[in-house]
Amino acid sequence: MKATPKIAVFDTTLRDGEQAAGTRLGKRDKMTIARQLAKLRVDIIEAGFPASSPEDFDAVREIALGVEGPTICALSRAVPSDIEACGKALAKARRPRIHTGIGVSDIHIMGKFQDDRYGKTLEGKKDKLVAIAVDAVKRARNCSAEVQFYAEDAGRSDPEYLYRMLEAVIAAGATVVNIPDTTGYTVPEQYGALIAGIKKNVPNIDKAVISVHCHDDLGLAVANSLAGVINGARQVEGTINGIGERAGNAAIEEVVMGLRTRHDYYGVSTGIEPKEFFRTSRMVADMLGMPVPANKAVIGTNAFSHSSGIHVDGFLKNRQTYEIMRPEDVGLNESRVVLTARTGRAGLRARLEKLGYKLEKEEIESLYQRFLTVADKKQEVLDEDLAAIVHDELPQTETAIKLDSLHVFSGTGAIPTATIRLHLKGVLKQGASIGDGPVDAVYKAIAAITGVKAKLLRYEIRAITGGTEALGEVNVHLELDGRRAMGRGASTDIVEASAKAYVDGLNRVM
Amino acid sequence: MKATPKIAVFDTTLRDGEQAAGTRLGKRDKMTIARQLAKLRVDIIEAGFPASSPEDFDAVREIALGVEGPTICALSRAVPSDIEACGKALAKARRPRIHTGIGVSDIHIMGKFQDDRYGKTLEGKKDKLVAIAVDAVKRARNCSAEVQFYAEDAGRSDPEYLYRMLEAVIAAGATVVNIPDTTGYTVPEQYGALIAGIKKNVPNIDKAVISVHCHDDLGLAVANSLAGVINGARQVEGTINGIGERAGNAAIEEVVMGLRTRHDYYGVSTGIEPKEFFRTSRMVADMLGMPVPANKAVIGTNAFSHSSGIHVDGFLKNRQTYEIMRPEDVGLNESRVVLTARTGRAGLRARLEKLGYKLEKEEIESLYQRFLTVADKKQEVLDEDLAAIVHDELPQTETAIKLDSLHVFSGTGAIPTATIRLHLKGVLKQGASIGDGPVDAVYKAIAAITGVKAKLLRYEIRAITGGTEALGEVNVHLELDGRRAMGRGASTDIVEASAKAYVDGLNRVM
Repeated sequence: MKATPKIAVFDTTLRDGEQAAGTRLGKRDKMTIARQLAKLRVDIIEAGFPASSPEDFDAVREIALGVEGPTICALSRAVPSDIEACGKALAKARRPRIHTGIGVSDIHIMGKFQDDRYGKTLEGKKDKLVAIAVDAVKRARNCSAEVQFYAEDAGRSDPEYLYRMLEAVIAAGATVVNIPDTTGYTVPEQYGALIAGIKKNVPNIDKAVISVHCHDDLGLAVANSLAGVINGARQVEGTINGIGERAGNAAIEEVVMGLRTRHDYYGVSTGIEPKEFFRTSRMVADMLGMPVPANKAVIGTNAFSHSSGIHVDGFLKNRQTYEIMRPEDVGLNESRVVLTARTGRAGLRARLEKLGYKLEKEEIESLYQRFLTVADKKQEVLDEDLAAIVHDELPQTETAIKLDSLHVFSGTGAIPTATIRLHLKGVLKQGASIGDGPVDAVYKAIAAITGVKAKLLRYEIRAITGGTEALGEVNVHLELDGRRAMGRGASTDIVEASAKAYVDGLNRVM
Repeated sequence: MKATPKIAVFDTTLRDGEQAAGTRLGKRDKMTIARQLAKLRVDIIEAGFPASSPEDFDAVREIALGVEGPTICALSRAVPSDIEACGKALAKARRPRIHTGIGVSDIHIMGKFQDDRYGKTLEGKKDKLVAIAVDAVKRARNCSAEVQFYAEDAGRSDPEYLYRMLEAVIAAGATVVNIPDTTGYTVPEQYGALIAGIKKNVPNIDKAVISVHCHDDLGLAVANSLAGVINGARQVEGTINGIGERAGNAAIEEVVMGLRTRHDYYGVSTGIEPKEFFRTSRMVADMLGMPVPANKAVIGTNAFSHSSGIHVDGFLKNRQTYEIMRPEDVGLNESRVVLTARTGRAGLRARLEKLGYKLEKEEIESLYQRFLTVADKKQEVLDEDLAAIVHDELPQTETAIKLDSLHVFSGTGAIPTATIRLHLKGVLKQGASIGDGPVDAVYKAIAAITGVKAKLLRYEIRAITGGTEALGEVNVHLELDGRRAMGRGASTDIVEASAKAYVDGLNRVM
C-alpha cells in the first residue's frame, strides 16, 4: 500500500499577515498566536523578519524559545546582515529555518536591481543575482540546517532562469524552494504547470521540497495552491483568514479543508488539527482588528447556515444535500465554556491558559477583578470577552496616560459634552469638551487635556458578542509625527470603550 | 481576424445574494441596486423568486418595468405555479428570462424527491424528473423567449444523466443551460472537465449557451468559474462581493477582473464597465449590512495598498513590480464628489440621481433638511453618507413608532441612564431606563415604552466614513414571534444612531 504523501503547512500570519494589517502586534499577542498555531499543528511558523526592527527580532527570539512543536522560521533578504540577524534570533530554536531569497522575474530584476553594481544588462544582472542567492543560502546553512529559498515573483518569471536559479540554490544547500506568485497574477493551470516544469527541469529538485506561496489579487490564491499540490508541491504557505499584503495570501483554513474534503481527488494529508481553525481564526481577527466576513469559506459565521426555503427543505431531508463539510470539523460548534461571576481565580486562570495566555500571579489578580465587573454586567463571559479583557488590562507598552474617569451627556437638541479626568505621567488632570457626538466630545476633551494632537485615521467599533449588554470593542488608528499605531479598548459602555481605545492608541503612538 | 468571444454576466445579487444576507431589502433599495447593476452593464439581472412571496413578486415586476438595459430574469422551481408567477411578474419586461430547473445529482434526487409519485427507484425518478423539466421549460417558453434551465447540484451529478437532461431541455426550448456547483464541492480541473464534457457529449449543445454558477465553500468559486470559461462556458453567474448562500457565490468583480487582467490567457471579453465596481460593491455592502473585508480581492480597501518596506521600495521604483491592476480600473480612486452645506437642492438632487435614487419632490425636501444638519456637523458629505441619509429619512415601511427625542447620561461610576420620548401611532409617550451602557439603557427604555419585547439577535455599528465626526451607522437584527428584520439608523452620535436603528427594526418586524 502506498503511503499518503504528507503536505507541510507553513504559516506566515505573523510575518506576511501582520505586515499588512496596518498595526503591529505586541510581543504577548504574537506569542499567544504562535502558541495557538502550535495547537493547530502547523508544521512551520514564520515568526517575523528580524532585520526589519528590534521588536521583530525580539518576537522571533521569544517565539523560538517559547513555542514547542513547529519549526520556527525567520525571513531575510539575500543580504549578509539580514541572515546574521536571523541566525541570532533563531539561536535558541529547537528546529530553526532561515527563509532567504531574491527576485527572479525580469520586472523585479530590472525594477529592484537597477544599480550598475548588479550588472549592466539584464543578462549580467541575472548572473549576479544567482551568485548573490547562492552566497545567501550558504551563509544561512551555516546558522540553520533548514534553509528555505524564495524566488520572488516566480509567477511572472522566465522559467528557464527560474530553473537555473533553483538548481544553483539547491546545490548550495537550500532544503525548501518557495515559488511565490508574489503579485497574484497566475491562474491555476499556469501555476500548476510552473510547478510541474520545476519538477521536470530542475535536475536536483529531489533534494528539496517545493513550496507554494500564492496571493489573492485575482481571488485565485487557494486554487493556485491546490494546483501546485496536484503538480508536486509538498509544502503550502498561507495565513489564517487569508490576511496579507493587498488582497492577502492563501487562507490556510481553505487550502487545508480543500485537501481534506477532496481527499478523493488530491490524495494527500496534512498534520493540521482542523478543530482548532475556528478558535485560531477568531484570535487572529480580534488581535489584528480584522473581522472575518460572514460569508468567508470554512470559518465565516454563515459558512454553514442555510437560508433559502428550497435549501432548508433539502437540508432537513438529507444533510448531505447542501453540506460538504460539518461545522464541528473546524471547531465551530465546540461547546463554548462559559464563565460566570461564580468562577474563581483558578477557573479563570485555567481558561486563560487553555486560550494560550501565560500570566504572572499579579496579572491574574488584576484580570480577575476586571472579570468580576464584566461577569456582573453581562452574566456570561465568553472566550472572546476574555481576549478583550486581557488586551485591555495588561498593557503591552508603557502607559504615560491613564483614564481615571469620564462622564458624558448627549441627546436630541443637547450639545454632546464630555468631562474627562486623566493620569498624565502620574499627575491628575481634567477638562471638558463638546463635540458632534459623545465620542467626538470625549476625543476632543482628551486631546485638550493631553495637548497631543494625534490624527485619527480610522475608528472602528464592534460588539464582541451578542447584544447591547455585550462588551463593545473599539479600535482606533492614530498618526502622530508620521508614526502610526492602533489602540484598543473594551467596555459594556461603547463611549467608555472609545475613550480607552484612544488613550491606548496615544500611549502606543507617543 | 477572429472576434473575441463575449461572456455574458448574470448577476444574482438580488436573488441568491439577498436570500443569504439575513435581511430583506425594501423595494426602493432593490430598485436602486438594480439600476446600479445596469450602470455596471451586467447582461442579466436575476431580480427574485416571484412565487416565494408577494414582496418578491412585486420587486421583480417593478425592476422589469423600471430598469433599462439588462435582461430581467426571475427564478422558479420546475412547478407550473412558479412559472406562472414568473410570467406574470415579467409581463412588462423588455427582455424577460425565466430561470427554471431541477436537481440532477443522485443525492438531490433521492433527498428531495423521496415521494413515490416521482418514481419508486432512482432510475424511475430520473426518468420522471426529465419529464418534469421538459414540461417546465415548455411552459416557460410560452411566457418568455429566453428560458434558462438550472441542473441543480450538477457538480456532484452522474455526467451521463446530466447530458441526457440537458439534451432534453434544450430540445424543449431552453436557450441557456446553467451548470451549478450548488455545494461548492468541485475543484477547477473537475469543473472545467464537466463543462468540456457537456460541450462534447450533448448533441444539441450548440443551440444553447452554457452558464457557470459556482459556490465558494472551498474558496474555489472564482477559479471554477474561470475553468468553466476556458472550457466553453459563455455566461458566468455570480454576486457583487461574492455574497450568497453559506460561503457565498462567485464574486462577479473577481471573475470579470480575472478575465480582463488575464485577457492574454482567457481571450474573452465582457460588456462590464469595471469603473462601476467600487460603487456597486459599497452600495450592496451598505444596504445589506455586510461590510467588505479590507483584504477582499479587487475591491477591498487594502487590495491596492502596499505596506512592507520591501514592497513599498519596489513599488516606488516601478509600479508594475507589485501591481497587476490599477485601482482606478475598478473605480477606487474616482474623484469623489464632496457636497457641503453650500450645495443647494438641485446639486443634492443631481448627486442622488447619479447614485441611482429616483425621488419625489417632497422627499428631496426632507432629505435636504437632514443633509444640511449633517453637512453642518461634518463639513464634507460623501456618497456613503448620502446613502445612509436616504435610508434613514425615507422609511420603506409604515412607521408605527417614531423617535421624538432622547437624552443619555453615562460615565465612570455612573449608572447609564436614558430618557426617551416616542410617537407611538401618533401618541407621545415617554420613559426612562438604566442599562449596562448607554445603548443598553436606550433599548431598555424603548422596550418599556412600547411594550414590544423583540429579541436583539445582532447589533453592529460602524463609522461610515473617517473619524468620530463621521456618521455612525448601526444595524440591528431583531426577532419577534419568529419574524426577523434588520433596522438601520445613522447619526454623528452613535447612541442616537443606535436608537434610530432599534426603532426602524421594530417598525419592520411588527
